[in-house]
Amino acid sequence: MVWTSGWRLASAVSNAGGLGLIGSGSMYPEILKMHIQKCREATDKPFGVNIPLIYPYAEKHMELIVKEGVSIVFTSAGNPDSWTPYLKSHQITVVHVVSGSRQAVKSENAGVDAIVAEGFEAGGHNGREETTTMVLIPAVCHAVSKPVIAAGGIGSGRAMLAAFALGAEGVQIGSRFAASIEGSAHPLFKQAIVDAGEGDTLLTLKKLLPVRMLKNAFFKLVQQGENQGASETELLELLGKARAKKGMFDGQLDEGELEIGQVSALIRDILPASDILRNIWEEFCTVKKQLSLLK
Amino acid sequence: MVWTSGWRLASAVSNAGGLGLIGSGSMYPEILKMHIQKCREATDKPFGVNIPLIYPYAEKHMELIVKEGVSIVFTSAGNPDSWTPYLKSHQITVVHVVSGSRQAVKSENAGVDAIVAEGFEAGGHNGREETTTMVLIPAVCHAVSKPVIAAGGIGSGRAMLAAFALGAEGVQIGSRFAASIEGSAHPLFKQAIVDAGEGDTLLTLKKLLPVRMLKNAFFKLVQQGENQGASETELLELLGKARAKKGMFDGQLDEGELEIGQVSALIRDILPASDILRNIWEEFCTVKKQLSLLK
Repeated sequence: MVWTSGWRLASAVSNAGGLGLIGSGSMYPEILKMHIQKCREATDKPFGVNIPLIYPYAEKHMELIVKEGVSIVFTSAGNPDSWTPYLKSHQITVVHVVSGSRQAVKSENAGVDAIVAEGFEAGGHNGREETTTMVLIPAVCHAVSKPVIAAGGIGSGRAMLAAFALGAEGVQIGSRFAASIEGSAHPLFKQAIVDAGEGDTLLTLKKLLPVRMLKNAFFKLVQQGENQGASETELLELLGKARAKKGMFDGQLDEGELEIGQVSALIRDILPASDILRNIWEEFCTVKKQLSLLK
Repeated sequence: MVWTSGWRLASAVSNAGGLGLIGSGSMYPEILKMHIQKCREATDKPFGVNIPLIYPYAEKHMELIVKEGVSIVFTSAGNPDSWTPYLKSHQITVVHVVSGSRQAVKSENAGVDAIVAEGFEAGGHNGREETTTMVLIPAVCHAVSKPVIAAGGIGSGRAMLAAFALGAEGVQIGSRFAASIEGSAHPLFKQAIVDAGEGDTLLTLKKLLPVRMLKNAFFKLVQQGENQGASETELLELLGKARAKKGMFDGQLDEGELEIGQVSALIRDILPASDILRNIWEEFCTVKKQLSLLK
């Protein structure tokens, strides 16, 4: 949730009954500090911070988390051994994001409290095994005993219920909230999410770190390079710096990298976070009741 | 289900309460005729035939279907306009397999009776949009009014319930039955399905017709070629003839093309078809009851 989930969205989600997360992977430490403080002013409910472990400021962010008294941290894109003991020693709840069972077992052994299992359909950075939510959730639930939170393809009550049927005890919802009123992404990017249909995202840059993005002009350049067998160095050069900021925050829809999940095909409006949560909950309850009546 | 679903598996599935399908995409017309006749001797329940429309013998197969009085046909890998009117004029129930909503609408307009929506996680030939079952099912259900049958990643009662939560009214199960006692695949291939773990299949040959297969020695040759920017012609040459037969039917696990879905990671035994169906049904009922008790 780089460039999309600041204090406004996180506090709105927490106030509406979810667990709001600040996405710190696009923030300098001073900016993260401001978001934590503003989030605390805006809600008296719990909220968390997501820290991608490959991010250059991960260490600074960890210090800040402890100093600011944040009680819940979601770590991703890295080794759960590297920071879980530190966070646990400060009584912080730790959830690690994985894309496969091996990493889930490793996370459990590292002492995390719960695991997010994120399928291939999710936006942004993703695993190399390409396991979809439908297969990943039962696999991870079979491999670990800690609670599993499903992610990838989930933006509705139906999908939440499907995740529960597969064995998850919670869901992590990204793309749907990227298209919220309180999300910090550029309005043009939010509209691009609403406009996206099936097949409009693809997992790409697999020779670097695979990332799912909208198929815009920048994507097409990457794809052209890959089809012609471009090397890692050539792809890194093409990628350049700050592509995600350019697309998602500055709204340069052609030049930027637009990270979003496949579920964008099902998102048809930009709503307040509280409406999104209520719609999901109501659909979840309605469909759960319908299913229970099936013969 | 090329090379895996002959009359033994189809009749066993139908006798156990499912709708067994003969996979005709690997059969000459005379062979298909024999399978239809043997299937009829082995069960008095309805069964169907799957016909991939790109298959050179599709036309001969269609004639045979009518002549032999087969009452249900699943068409795939082609244009639903090409054969639906012919089949419907003979009072045959027609179901078309799609990987996206546009094809689903086209199928509905062509007059099919139901639609199989098959996600990216499915084995064998697959769509270019890479939409996973989690996202595809709600999208197709939104686009058409005919019943939707979910496929891709479904080999358990949990997954069947998840598909129903997403809006499907039925499920099509392939990989799980490829690893059945009655399946006609080579025993070594069945064992390879049981041995497969997460990340052991990948959708590949995207410059030709994308196909999901196990990552064996043949796959690695393809991948190497693709990473170096191999052309369609080079890939066709590498593919050669009868790769799927070699792998799935003859059991040449290194040289052959081993088509199977991601759900192979969750398959842990080779069972009679009736046990597979009973296990799925019992898990479906158990988890449905658990979900209905959720607060």
